Amino acid sequence: MSKTFEKLNPYLEKSMAIETALALLSWDMETLAPADSIDYTSKVVGILSGESFSSIVNDEVKDLLKQLNTEKEQTQLSIKEKAIVKNLTKSMEQMEKIPPEEYQAYSELTAKAQNIWVRAKKNNRYEDFAPTLSEMLTYQKKFIGYRQKEDENLYDILLDDYEEGFTTKELDAFFEQLKKTILPLVKKVTAKNDTIDKSFLYRNYDINQQKSFARYIAGYIGFDFNRGVMAESEHPFTTNLHNHDVRITNHYYEDNLESAIFSIIHEGGHAIYEMGVADDLTQTPAGAGMSMGIHESQSRFFENVIGRNPAFWEPIYDKLVSYFPEQLSDISFDHFIRAINKSEPGLIRTEADELTYSLHIMIRYELERALFSDEITVDELPSLWNQKYEEYLGITPPDNTQGVLQDVHWALGSYGYFPSYAIGSAISAQIYYHLCDKMPFEQYLKEGNLTVIREYLKDHLHKYGTTKTTMELLKDMTGEEFNADYYVRYLEEKFTKIYEL
Amino acid sequence: MSKTFEKLNPYLEKSMAIETALALLSWDMETLAPADSIDYTSKVVGILSGESFSSIVNDEVKDLLKQLNTEKEQTQLSIKEKAIVKNLTKSMEQMEKIPPEEYQAYSELTAKAQNIWVRAKKNNRYEDFAPTLSEMLTYQKKFIGYRQKEDENLYDILLDDYEEGFTTKELDAFFEQLKKTILPLVKKVTAKNDTIDKSFLYRNYDINQQKSFARYIAGYIGFDFNRGVMAESEHPFTTNLHNHDVRITNHYYEDNLESAIFSIIHEGGHAIYEMGVADDLTQTPAGAGMSMGIHESQSRFFENVIGRNPAFWEPIYDKLVSYFPEQLSDISFDHFIRAINKSEPGLIRTEADELTYSLHIMIRYELERALFSDEITVDELPSLWNQKYEEYLGITPPDNTQGVLQDVHWALGSYGYFPSYAIGSAISAQIYYHLCDKMPFEQYLKEGNLTVIREYLKDHLHKYGTTKTTMELLKDMTGEEFNADYYVRYLEEKFTKIYEL
Repeated sequence: MSKTFEKLNPYLEKSMAIETALALLSWDMETLAPADSIDYTSKVVGILSGESFSSIVNDEVKDLLKQLNTEKEQTQLSIKEKAIVKNLTKSMEQMEKIPPEEYQAYSELTAKAQNIWVRAKKNNRYEDFAPTLSEMLTYQKKFIGYRQKEDENLYDILLDDYEEGFTTKELDAFFEQLKKTILPLVKKVTAKNDTIDKSFLYRNYDINQQKSFARYIAGYIGFDFNRGVMAESEHPFTTNLHNHDVRITNHYYEDNLESAIFSIIHEGGHAIYEMGVADDLTQTPAGAGMSMGIHESQSRFFENVIGRNPAFWEPIYDKLVSYFPEQLSDISFDHFIRAINKSEPGLIRTEADELTYSLHIMIRYELERALFSDEITVDELPSLWNQKYEEYLGITPPDNTQGVLQDVHWALGSYGYFPSYAIGSAISAQIYYHLCDKMPFEQYLKEGNLTVIREYLKDHLHKYGTTKTTMELLKDMTGEEFNADYYVRYLEEKFTKIYEL
Repeated sequence: MSKTFEKLNPYLEKSMAIETALALLSWDMETLAPADSIDYTSKVVGILSGESFSSIVNDEVKDLLKQLNTEKEQTQLSIKEKAIVKNLTKSMEQMEKIPPEEYQAYSELTAKAQNIWVRAKKNNRYEDFAPTLSEMLTYQKKFIGYRQKEDENLYDILLDDYEEGFTTKELDAFFEQLKKTILPLVKKVTAKNDTIDKSFLYRNYDINQQKSFARYIAGYIGFDFNRGVMAESEHPFTTNLHNHDVRITNHYYEDNLESAIFSIIHEGGHAIYEMGVADDLTQTPAGAGMSMGIHESQSRFFENVIGRNPAFWEPIYDKLVSYFPEQLSDISFDHFIRAINKSEPGLIRTEADELTYSLHIMIRYELERALFSDEITVDELPSLWNQKYEEYLGITPPDNTQGVLQDVHWALGSYGYFPSYAIGSAISAQIYYHLCDKMPFEQYLKEGNLTVIREYLKDHLHKYGTTKTTMELLKDMTGEEFNADYYVRYLEEKFTKIYEL
């Protein structure tokens, strides 16, 4: 190990320990903590966040990173160490130029923003959220501005934070391709006037039975309960303390079986990724999922490519019926498969089917892009949102609650995050065709043999943590970099078949 | 606020935040964390323990404490500040001489020890736990050794940590008194050849129903679920993040209703104490329960003085029967009361009746005392344990699971803790006679009015945190310092009546 790198270790360990504690506190606040504890526990979170920040953003670490980024030092670093130095340098660049008092003010604003958004969404009052959103955007533009290079597009900097290698240039091309291919496909499907009845998925389903089945199916896809925990929260999410403690949540509705099943498979996909990170990388800055896009590629691969595949359900549909005989014994296997793959333009992103999903993302991308280049204002957002839904999906939100206010991301300060969902979906299709080349994919699903698939993903993707970039991961595994053709092909093949187009 | 004291604040806040995170990590490891996470999470615990240590044990804090302990500074401190300075000074003395790397290694060992103990107990393999126990004792002796004054008894130092004012001198006298009074009483009771049949408590009790009833009764005695959480673990315990997040656990056995009920009332007593600490003390070093003895006085007061009192059950016995009609409808109220107060020498401390309970403690006290003076070795513990059970209780454990492995304490590094249970029991009796003077105690229980009792305890004990010592709390509330005569009187009166001696 490089002597200079060795000096980084105490800082890395301290930061890792505090971040692990913060992850647990956050998990606990969402799943278990008592109602009246929030104010007191938030104080703890605030102090630890400050400690975490100063454990990395300090002169000693800055100086070490400067040394470690010299050519001479770089040659002495292992792949793992290089990845760690790269990630830390990126974090340092993101943070170091922001004056602490500005960051503090922004953090306080963000903390309040969620509540303001919740109320505004509940009351359908966009105007109550707009000033906060506007203020947050101003801060964000200022923060990115601190590290803007000449002529650099502000939004590109944000995009790069979430997904290295994907700027507006790549994303414009990507969404243009989707517009040309997916939009006509959606129109064709809509023209078929689909009559598949999926109302049986919204019968009354006992919540304890739903939990039992969620536990069963999480285990079935490969969630390891010796290294993971499953619990409940308002919105499903995945978090982890390290690769031996990965946690997923679900939310159960008495009248929605579909939500419980596909949310847990989705989160299970995220979790299997984190469980697959190599032991020698976990608990280091190189030891988590590579990027949001790669993460979503795994969750959406499990949710859609696997979870909505007839071959996946073939061996276990009877099992599902045995959990809910009253609700499902009159539903044939084919009916069930058609229902979980039904495509229908809708207003809500999180409930969208595979085919229309990326259109929801495209709308958000176009709006964020325009916001960050000052082409549009915060006040114009609702009407532009609605116009785009009408244009791309053929429906107009009846109110802002089901429109521009539906997602939490902007209230969290996550700008440039949405495109990762579409990138992830596209990557999942690219991986799918690669796997079909490498193994009898559907046959394995029919045999209930997910182990081979999971092990392949682990060996070619999961285990690398952040030691390879998105492009490197794809190149090394599938032989080519990101290629959205597979995504288009996947959707065309799948929906042409389902809808006999 | 004193200017010097103000300088302490950042250190206090950092330490509090890290300690809160450690409390949550520990809770999580005992209640929820997946089996294979231990090694990785222990590393986090080790690092955070080191951070917690260095946040207080450093030259700046040492210097501030030195100043704050001068007469001039002391006059400027509030009661709360004085208590904080006193506690910190004590912690500093406990910690300052321990090399941080030794403390970190010990913390990591302790984090693993619990799991090793759980497995050893489950498999009845003391030999699997013995090396860990031995290693922990070596560390502990080393640590206490660092602050040992000439001729000072090592075990006295530990005892004083848990219970200021109680050394082997006081405890030898206390247990001598119990030997003289309780041992003969136990013999008299045993001679009565009690025929109360309590086997109905060990019928088959549905665990989910037990959980529901535990939740009911915890709420009934005053556990506030808006400020607390109830979960399951191998051994029931209480912990807290602050006074607005207090957590208790229970362990359920299908064939033991008694254990579930009285464990949850016991932990509920601990929790009510922590919930009662004043808001301006919580999240400071003065904001927790005063001592282990006072803590046990509250838990055992709720468990025994209240929980085994006929007046307590009068309004709610029907409720209990309604939870378990199949098992309890043939059991009269009087039969139930006799059964939960039956005295019978047994093997398990946590299941011991009030009368024989302190004999279990005496055995642990004698063994710990001998371990710390090197009169006995870890390898001798199981046989000595069994001999003492034969001597004091007239029964020999058939295996180590029911013998030396039964309690978690030694796996937690809690040596010198056990005596607090007996001290607490004695204090609970002292408080009981005081309350009988102050209010129609039994009448309130019959009316299901626990609020007045709880509020009295809050106002005279709970709210003070550590701003009064054990002796001060007792003196200010009951008019006299610790007096074990009340305990002997309580047991003699109660069991003479029950057994018509």
